[in-house]
Amino acid sequence: MASAAILPELATQVLIPVAAAVGIAFAVLQWLLVSKVRLSPERRADGGAGKSGPSDYLIEEEEGLNDHNVVVKCAEIQSAISEGATSFLFTEYKYVGLFMSIFAILIFLFLGSVEGFSTKSQPCHYTKDKTCKPALANAIFSTIAFVLGAVTSLVSGFLGMKIATYANARTTLEARKGVGKAFITAFRSGAVMGFLLAASGLLVLYIAINLFGIYYGDDWEGLFEAITGYGLGGSSMALFGRVGGGIYTKAADVGADLVGKVERNIPEDDPRKPSCKKIVFISLFRKLQVIADNVGDNVGDIAGMGSDLFGSYAESSCAALVVASISSFGINLEFTPMMYPLLVSSMGIIGCLITTLFATDFFEIKTVNEIEPALKKQLIISTVVMTIGIALVSWLGLPYTFTIFNFGVQKTVQSCPVQDVADSCRTGAATNVIFGLALGYKSVIIPIFAIAFSIFLSFSLAAMYGVAVAALGMLSTIATGLAIDAYGPISDNAGGIAEMAGMSHRIRERTDALDAAGNTTAAIGKGFAIGSAALVSLALFGAFVSRAAISTVDVLTPKVFIGLIVGAMLPYWFSAMTMKSVGSAALKMVEEVRRQFNTIPGLMEGTTKPDYATCVKISTDASIKEMIPPGALVMLTPLIVGILFGVETLSGVLAGALVSGVQIAISASNTGGAWDNAKKYIEAGASEHARTLGPKGSDPHKAAVIGDTIGDPLKDTSGPSLNILIKLMAVESLVFAPFFATHGGILFKWF
Amino acid sequence: MASAAILPELATQVLIPVAAAVGIAFAVLQWLLVSKVRLSPERRADGGAGKSGPSDYLIEEEEGLNDHNVVVKCAEIQSAISEGATSFLFTEYKYVGLFMSIFAILIFLFLGSVEGFSTKSQPCHYTKDKTCKPALANAIFSTIAFVLGAVTSLVSGFLGMKIATYANARTTLEARKGVGKAFITAFRSGAVMGFLLAASGLLVLYIAINLFGIYYGDDWEGLFEAITGYGLGGSSMALFGRVGGGIYTKAADVGADLVGKVERNIPEDDPRKPSCKKIVFISLFRKLQVIADNVGDNVGDIAGMGSDLFGSYAESSCAALVVASISSFGINLEFTPMMYPLLVSSMGIIGCLITTLFATDFFEIKTVNEIEPALKKQLIISTVVMTIGIALVSWLGLPYTFTIFNFGVQKTVQSCPVQDVADSCRTGAATNVIFGLALGYKSVIIPIFAIAFSIFLSFSLAAMYGVAVAALGMLSTIATGLAIDAYGPISDNAGGIAEMAGMSHRIRERTDALDAAGNTTAAIGKGFAIGSAALVSLALFGAFVSRAAISTVDVLTPKVFIGLIVGAMLPYWFSAMTMKSVGSAALKMVEEVRRQFNTIPGLMEGTTKPDYATCVKISTDASIKEMIPPGALVMLTPLIVGILFGVETLSGVLAGALVSGVQIAISASNTGGAWDNAKKYIEAGASEHARTLGPKGSDPHKAAVIGDTIGDPLKDTSGPSLNILIKLMAVESLVFAPFFATHGGILFKWF
Repeated sequence: MASAAILPELATQVLIPVAAAVGIAFAVLQWLLVSKVRLSPERRADGGAGKSGPSDYLIEEEEGLNDHNVVVKCAEIQSAISEGATSFLFTEYKYVGLFMSIFAILIFLFLGSVEGFSTKSQPCHYTKDKTCKPALANAIFSTIAFVLGAVTSLVSGFLGMKIATYANARTTLEARKGVGKAFITAFRSGAVMGFLLAASGLLVLYIAINLFGIYYGDDWEGLFEAITGYGLGGSSMALFGRVGGGIYTKAADVGADLVGKVERNIPEDDPRKPSCKKIVFISLFRKLQVIADNVGDNVGDIAGMGSDLFGSYAESSCAALVVASISSFGINLEFTPMMYPLLVSSMGIIGCLITTLFATDFFEIKTVNEIEPALKKQLIISTVVMTIGIALVSWLGLPYTFTIFNFGVQKTVQSCPVQDVADSCRTGAATNVIFGLALGYKSVIIPIFAIAFSIFLSFSLAAMYGVAVAALGMLSTIATGLAIDAYGPISDNAGGIAEMAGMSHRIRERTDALDAAGNTTAAIGKGFAIGSAALVSLALFGAFVSRAAISTVDVLTPKVFIGLIVGAMLPYWFSAMTMKSVGSAALKMVEEVRRQFNTIPGLMEGTTKPDYATCVKISTDASIKEMIPPGALVMLTPLIVGILFGVETLSGVLAGALVSGVQIAISASNTGGAWDNAKKYIEAGASEHARTLGPKGSDPHKAAVIGDTIGDPLKDTSGPSLNILIKLMAVESLVFAPFFATHGGILFKWF
Repeated sequence: MASAAILPELATQVLIPVAAAVGIAFAVLQWLLVSKVRLSPERRADGGAGKSGPSDYLIEEEEGLNDHNVVVKCAEIQSAISEGATSFLFTEYKYVGLFMSIFAILIFLFLGSVEGFSTKSQPCHYTKDKTCKPALANAIFSTIAFVLGAVTSLVSGFLGMKIATYANARTTLEARKGVGKAFITAFRSGAVMGFLLAASGLLVLYIAINLFGIYYGDDWEGLFEAITGYGLGGSSMALFGRVGGGIYTKAADVGADLVGKVERNIPEDDPRKPSCKKIVFISLFRKLQVIADNVGDNVGDIAGMGSDLFGSYAESSCAALVVASISSFGINLEFTPMMYPLLVSSMGIIGCLITTLFATDFFEIKTVNEIEPALKKQLIISTVVMTIGIALVSWLGLPYTFTIFNFGVQKTVQSCPVQDVADSCRTGAATNVIFGLALGYKSVIIPIFAIAFSIFLSFSLAAMYGVAVAALGMLSTIATGLAIDAYGPISDNAGGIAEMAGMSHRIRERTDALDAAGNTTAAIGKGFAIGSAALVSLALFGAFVSRAAISTVDVLTPKVFIGLIVGAMLPYWFSAMTMKSVGSAALKMVEEVRRQFNTIPGLMEGTTKPDYATCVKISTDASIKEMIPPGALVMLTPLIVGILFGVETLSGVLAGALVSGVQIAISASNTGGAWDNAKKYIEAGASEHARTLGPKGSDPHKAAVIGDTIGDPLKDTSGPSLNILIKLMAVESLVFAPFFATHGGILFKWF
């Protein structure tokens, strides 16, 4: 215990902000490189041809480089997408801001009431002989940390969206020069977001700890309890971002499917041109759908995911910090080991920076086939670099030798089972759905064993601190992970823009290849997100239990057991809400198109333009409205259970939601992914077997499309939000733990 | 503690066998009444016309009573169904028998090894100052009890099937005379099964307790530990019955859906009659499918359900007994309170007997609309009678006043949400599936709250004994419940026979009405089965924990937590297996029909009959083969976990499987039910709204059919089997608890 860390406090105080600054500088550099692609017609005369001439791109040819018209069109579409996304996010933030403000007040009131808003210092909770700051201070600083976390999460999401919409059209334009150029543009843009988020998350947390520390002095117990609010703020924003964005993006997707059916019901009231009305209606809707789909990608997959991963990062850091604050080095006020979680993140930024160079500078991609290996290489390099990096940080930063186990990559949907699912399309949509559901259920087995093994091992090494650090280790490559994750939707958007700008099929093929290559790595990323979520919530849960002064969580006591069974039910309730929301929002979108079609004169003749803004607004409002009930379910459940039933039942709820939510999250993601891939497999027709199922429009293909539509809300709305559900409930319980321990369980007190 | 029960021991010793005997006598009486319907052409000359003349049936007319040909045909079809079912069950029992024998040997070896097969008496486990029988005795008697339970379950299922196949054609024939006559025949046949099962289950258990008691003397702890094997035997049989029967029946159903798609792939090699081959193929398959469907109903819904409910009954009795054996009256050897669980079941037989008379004798059904109220009345009357009855038994049989709470009926799928699901068919199969899944997820909420409330209340009253008795209370109306449950498939079969025998539409409409009326009550019954399963497994789990000498099951210890998360995964694994099994078995069935079609000469011309027997055999073998892996998963998991990881991890697995399995069971049943009802709603076209979605063959109807096909394996294979999964794992753990406590957890011992 007397042994200190090798790294002196001063070095730690310097290293963390420097790493954060390097991360931000790197992000800015990447952004500058992306911004070199001009979104205004190039003047080919002055040397441009010399630099990017055909000689540089031996394998693929340039095309359309001289077509200024295309550039102008791309810029137009880009600004439409950017405006749509900005408008959605502003509406979302307005509502969420209101909710957050009320919640911040609740945090202050509840936590302040623990000692009746007394300003007197009290004996500490764990080390009774020391004096700690009053509960009122905890209330104030928790609220500040909550707001800080929420704002950082919000800014991360918003900036990510801005960068993505900045990059999409540029990727399209670069695709004219070849797939390599397009890849670098998309990947660099993803990296901007990844590094900005990882670095700013670290920096804000570091500054908050230091500023709060001025008041708290050596009361680290109170300091890190208050810091936990940072995780809660980040995670709450993430919930609304994921759910709102998820509903929005899928409403557009599902709406496109619906329109095919709905158009049959349009009355043929123009006897001269019997089917013209239908065609106009469909093409009107398609245009809207492409814009909405692209907007949806940016708000759901970019902003939502940014908030989500920021939330995970903030929570796992807070979980590790709060557990560490009452460890031996926390009590001895050893700064360097206490900051170990932040040192891991700092090392993560440096490690990911090196990794990124391998993708953008050390090697060059020349053909489509090289993309997927390049992305996989990113995962491997970052894992190797971070394994060494974390070992180094552990050696330098911890007072004793500490081994971080490098968790195996979770198995994701492979190509062979997808063929099974695709085959099942032969016998219709029903068998496709049955096989897809079965596949999703089966896909739960290996990840759960992996998670169970990780938990057991990390717990055996360092109890709950081990679990928290394991989660942090999984998230240490967050910058690279986010870069890969963001790269997918950017490429997807680029493809959409190419299509709308009327560019050739070649361009579309290149962007499609970029997008497809990201799918496998994105699936691995999703697996990591779920696995780390399970570890984080367990660590938070452990911290909550120790903070709430419960000695054991015995499932055989009725208070805990009813919590366990009800907690296991919550993910179902939540999924039921989000899945129905997608359907409802999609229907509202279709209705609005029909309304415009019937009321705006000249729309059919093509003399008037449809009112896109109202369409986007309607679906925005529908998504926002639908986002409230599931959000409230997650945010209010810990409060209600804690206040009415007390901490034992709440700990049951957390355990139940954790073990049940992980399963549904994995199975929903993989079921949806399998249907998606089965459809793509048939559409691509890349093998003899695949061609027997195709082509587009064949009966097996139709069945595959039905599966894909069912999978959309599962894999893009319910699945990813469930991660947040389990983490958020745990961190919220932890923040409110002092309140529940003092005033909770009134129902049992009364009876 | 000193207060004794009012009822003297002698009275208890008399009352229980008398109640069982009354139940069996009543069953025989009902069977005699059913057998009065002659399945050979009636001689109308000698007075028959006078007795059942038109004057008796004012509302509905008799028809076809003189058509001897119809009677002969019905008898033929009935014998085909009966033969198919018998053949399937014999094949199933052959494999299961082998498995059971091996398992019985395992029980003997594992339990005998606890004290190294010593024949010396040992100090008791709970009361250390007393001497108890050796572990070897426990091994022998547990094995005997296991075999007894398995055989009773097997016989219950088999007799149920025999009665149902005896009754189906008779119901068809009675339907000619009116819906009232048909109702009474079907309901009486159901009652035969219900009473036979409830009474024989009680009688065998009672005899076993008394015979085992001769050896055990006053070592009640050992006696009732050995008796638990009865529950394990019953439940193991139930698992295979449910899974095997469920796969078989749904393979036929799903196969029928597949044939519509497969026939497109038949090559048109006869240029003269281009589409003839297809038609022959389809009609050949349809015939087979109707027979297989009827056989499936009998083996899945009758024999499987009989075994299932017998298992529930045996387990909840054993759970209550084993908990009671170490209670104050168990230790004081007070016979009457000890036999309280059996007294409750005895009262159940008497109460249900009175209830049945209301359906068959006190009132007469004259129109179709009266059927559903009559069935609901059965539920209400039995609940009221049993509330009074159980209060009486508790007053007489327990040494202190004891209140059994009468649990509220769980909400099941109602008509309004079904309209939502039906509406979603407008926009295609995908939205239908999304809304159905969402509805199923949502349907979990209220039952889970009800279960949580029941558990909390019953636990507060009498700890785990309260939970066990609550489960027993829910099952006390088992005879009536089974009568209603069995009545449905019998009516369904009767309809199938009517169709195949070429009887008029009127007959089919009457049997359909009988079947439909049973659906709502059957759904309530399913809800009760799931609710009671949750309570039973919790009670068994509690008994296991106390037997395995674990003081607490703390989810925050890694051993328990990894068990919890893996346990919560098991229902997904199991469902993945059973759902894929249905698809595979269905495909094998289709393949066999195609093979016969291509190889048997003269089949197309109608000169040769197809080889039905081989078809039935193929699908039987496929079902049996597919039944093994999920069965093994359930049976082996507790053994593997207990031996390798020990009792803490195993208790985590049990808790996880319980809280997660209940959710999937409820949502799978209700999702499947909602799709089924949505399809029926559209097909029936009973309202203006329903007619806008129809008729048969419309696009919304097609979408509804897809949903229904997906729902089949969910509601009839996975859902009901999951009940058994959670109970069986708990009872198995309880039986093997002494072994695990002594020799378990070798993995942790090694490392």
